[in-house]
Amino acid sequence: MRSIYTLKKKCAHTSARTGTLFTHHGPVETPVFMPVGTQASVKALTPEELINIGAQIILGNTYHLYLRPGHKLIKSMGGLHKFMNWHRPILTDSGGFQVYSLASFRKIVEKGAIFQSHIDGSRHELTPELAIEIQEDLGSDIMMALDTCIPYPSTWEEAKEATDLTTRWAKRCLAARRDERLLLFGIVQGGMFEDLRKRHTEELLAMEFDGYALGGLSVGEPKELLFQMIELSRPMIPEDLPCYVMGVGTPEDLVECVSRGVDMFDCVMPTRNARNGMLFTSYGHIVIKNARFATDDSPIDPECTCYTCRNYSRAYLRHLFMARELLAYRLNTIHNLHYYIKLMEQMRAAIQEGEFVQFKRDFYSKRQGQEAKP
Amino acid sequence: MRSIYTLKKKCAHTSARTGTLFTHHGPVETPVFMPVGTQASVKALTPEELINIGAQIILGNTYHLYLRPGHKLIKSMGGLHKFMNWHRPILTDSGGFQVYSLASFRKIVEKGAIFQSHIDGSRHELTPELAIEIQEDLGSDIMMALDTCIPYPSTWEEAKEATDLTTRWAKRCLAARRDERLLLFGIVQGGMFEDLRKRHTEELLAMEFDGYALGGLSVGEPKELLFQMIELSRPMIPEDLPCYVMGVGTPEDLVECVSRGVDMFDCVMPTRNARNGMLFTSYGHIVIKNARFATDDSPIDPECTCYTCRNYSRAYLRHLFMARELLAYRLNTIHNLHYYIKLMEQMRAAIQEGEFVQFKRDFYSKRQGQEAKP
Repeated sequence: MRSIYTLKKKCAHTSARTGTLFTHHGPVETPVFMPVGTQASVKALTPEELINIGAQIILGNTYHLYLRPGHKLIKSMGGLHKFMNWHRPILTDSGGFQVYSLASFRKIVEKGAIFQSHIDGSRHELTPELAIEIQEDLGSDIMMALDTCIPYPSTWEEAKEATDLTTRWAKRCLAARRDERLLLFGIVQGGMFEDLRKRHTEELLAMEFDGYALGGLSVGEPKELLFQMIELSRPMIPEDLPCYVMGVGTPEDLVECVSRGVDMFDCVMPTRNARNGMLFTSYGHIVIKNARFATDDSPIDPECTCYTCRNYSRAYLRHLFMARELLAYRLNTIHNLHYYIKLMEQMRAAIQEGEFVQFKRDFYSKRQGQEAKP
Repeated sequence: MRSIYTLKKKCAHTSARTGTLFTHHGPVETPVFMPVGTQASVKALTPEELINIGAQIILGNTYHLYLRPGHKLIKSMGGLHKFMNWHRPILTDSGGFQVYSLASFRKIVEKGAIFQSHIDGSRHELTPELAIEIQEDLGSDIMMALDTCIPYPSTWEEAKEATDLTTRWAKRCLAARRDERLLLFGIVQGGMFEDLRKRHTEELLAMEFDGYALGGLSVGEPKELLFQMIELSRPMIPEDLPCYVMGVGTPEDLVECVSRGVDMFDCVMPTRNARNGMLFTSYGHIVIKNARFATDDSPIDPECTCYTCRNYSRAYLRHLFMARELLAYRLNTIHNLHYYIKLMEQMRAAIQEGEFVQFKRDFYSKRQGQEAKP
């Protein structure tokens, strides 16, 4: 198997590690956070702003792009990178999770997932082969194998059935792949059952994927279960392969997952919360519509160096938010993504310097998981 | 009277002219188009984007800023320029037109305009003295005197009554002014009646305003009446004073008004139409949601050099618009404002070179006032 990941440094006290992931559109330093660009756009931002923030790689959603504007259209426009003017790496999910969470009707059969579009009710069938075809047409740097999602809670029997199907689909995804330049990751399922997780990790590791995602997590389970499932699968994955935990999470979740050896993350939290006026700071979060910010001329976070914090006061951001000005969503998104991306940069640097344990201590001593009171 | 305007060149065949208007925040080359930044934000754009587009001066709305976040709050934050991070000139209107067009209830009395907020129904009284106080607290470079708006059509008696009241309010505005660094313009009313327009122009010219606006136009009257009223008042205003026509208009309107000697313009058309997907080009406008743009990989306007046209296809812009992505409003706004501001630049250059008549001919030969068919 080709080597797409180079380990640079491991933490001596935790499983945290830093390395480089090589893709068709260039290298990515890990651990990395990938902003979500669902519909060929990271909501409210231009590619230049993402680059200024330090985004190395973004995520696109196969389900959304397949339905609108369509993968064939994007292919005819020269692929997703050219279409959206983003020339760094792109990871696309398989569409499985969105069929599960968004489609107005869905039925999982051996062949694939039958569903109705949340946009116009039209009927579609997403097979493993189609999931790969869509992602290859988009020109994704990292494609994900189609998986079946398992609700939480589920019975052992339900979880086993869905997990076995995911294994059969994973094989079909590998067989369907045509463009070897595009990486393909497998997704470990197994619900919250240790035996199923363990067995599924083994089954997928026996196939030649370029990397592995731990899926079906962050679906409403207690935080302890999330970490338990990661602690179970992560050590089984060889050191020269990247490990991605999908849909995680809060800043604290990122720190805990990095401690457990996870390399890649994506989550709508920084972007979606920005649009709802919830802003991350080194000392916790603030809710910008709070009346106490009306005459506050300080920036969101005095320690932050983002465009928003360098140029605008909390008072102005509160005004924009209350007046529903479009600029509010943008300035808030710049700040929150900057917070997430700097957090990953700080973790990479701390691991490199052998100071990750100290970093974690400092991080927790500042953040209370509560509203900031600086 | 101090001189705030320097004439640079007059057209030999029309009344078009180019010059420089001097304000507390620097000079403005005229004729000029002022993007509308109603609520302390030109919708969807940052100040840096406005500067890149070439915006020299923007407009803020007194009515909106008085109601939310309040002029006292903005004053305590260091004024409107600092609050919104825009350090070039700002013109503020007087609030009179918004009371007329937006307030849920209004009554005009000698003292001022009594109205209910369109936001929360609260009751307010906007007097000439308060209009000046608000604009001085905002730190506006060019303040407008409070006027009364005259609906179209109106009777001669109604128009006369409102015009006479505007004269009395104009005097009170001049008397209320405290900060001489901030310019104050009078607004000519008179409805669509030649005698009233003429007399009102004379009455206001007898007062020491720094410049004059022609108001109560573009309120639904036929285009001929608009030009007729301008042709009546404009020649009466001395050459060393700037002339501003409020709320105008289409690209064709701008060209016609410049031909008649107007120096300053503002209009929501480029920004509002952008958010509705109507985009200006040298050959007319296009409606981006039109299905024929779905697979069109050319820019909005092949002759345009704006950020949007340099980086994105019509196909991508259509996708963003159909998917209601926030980036759509922003990219469209950049393009439309760029079109308006370049149009003014082209007119200034043409007047300077003595080629304004040729410019007009070329402009009309390309634009059909219809949807573009390039």
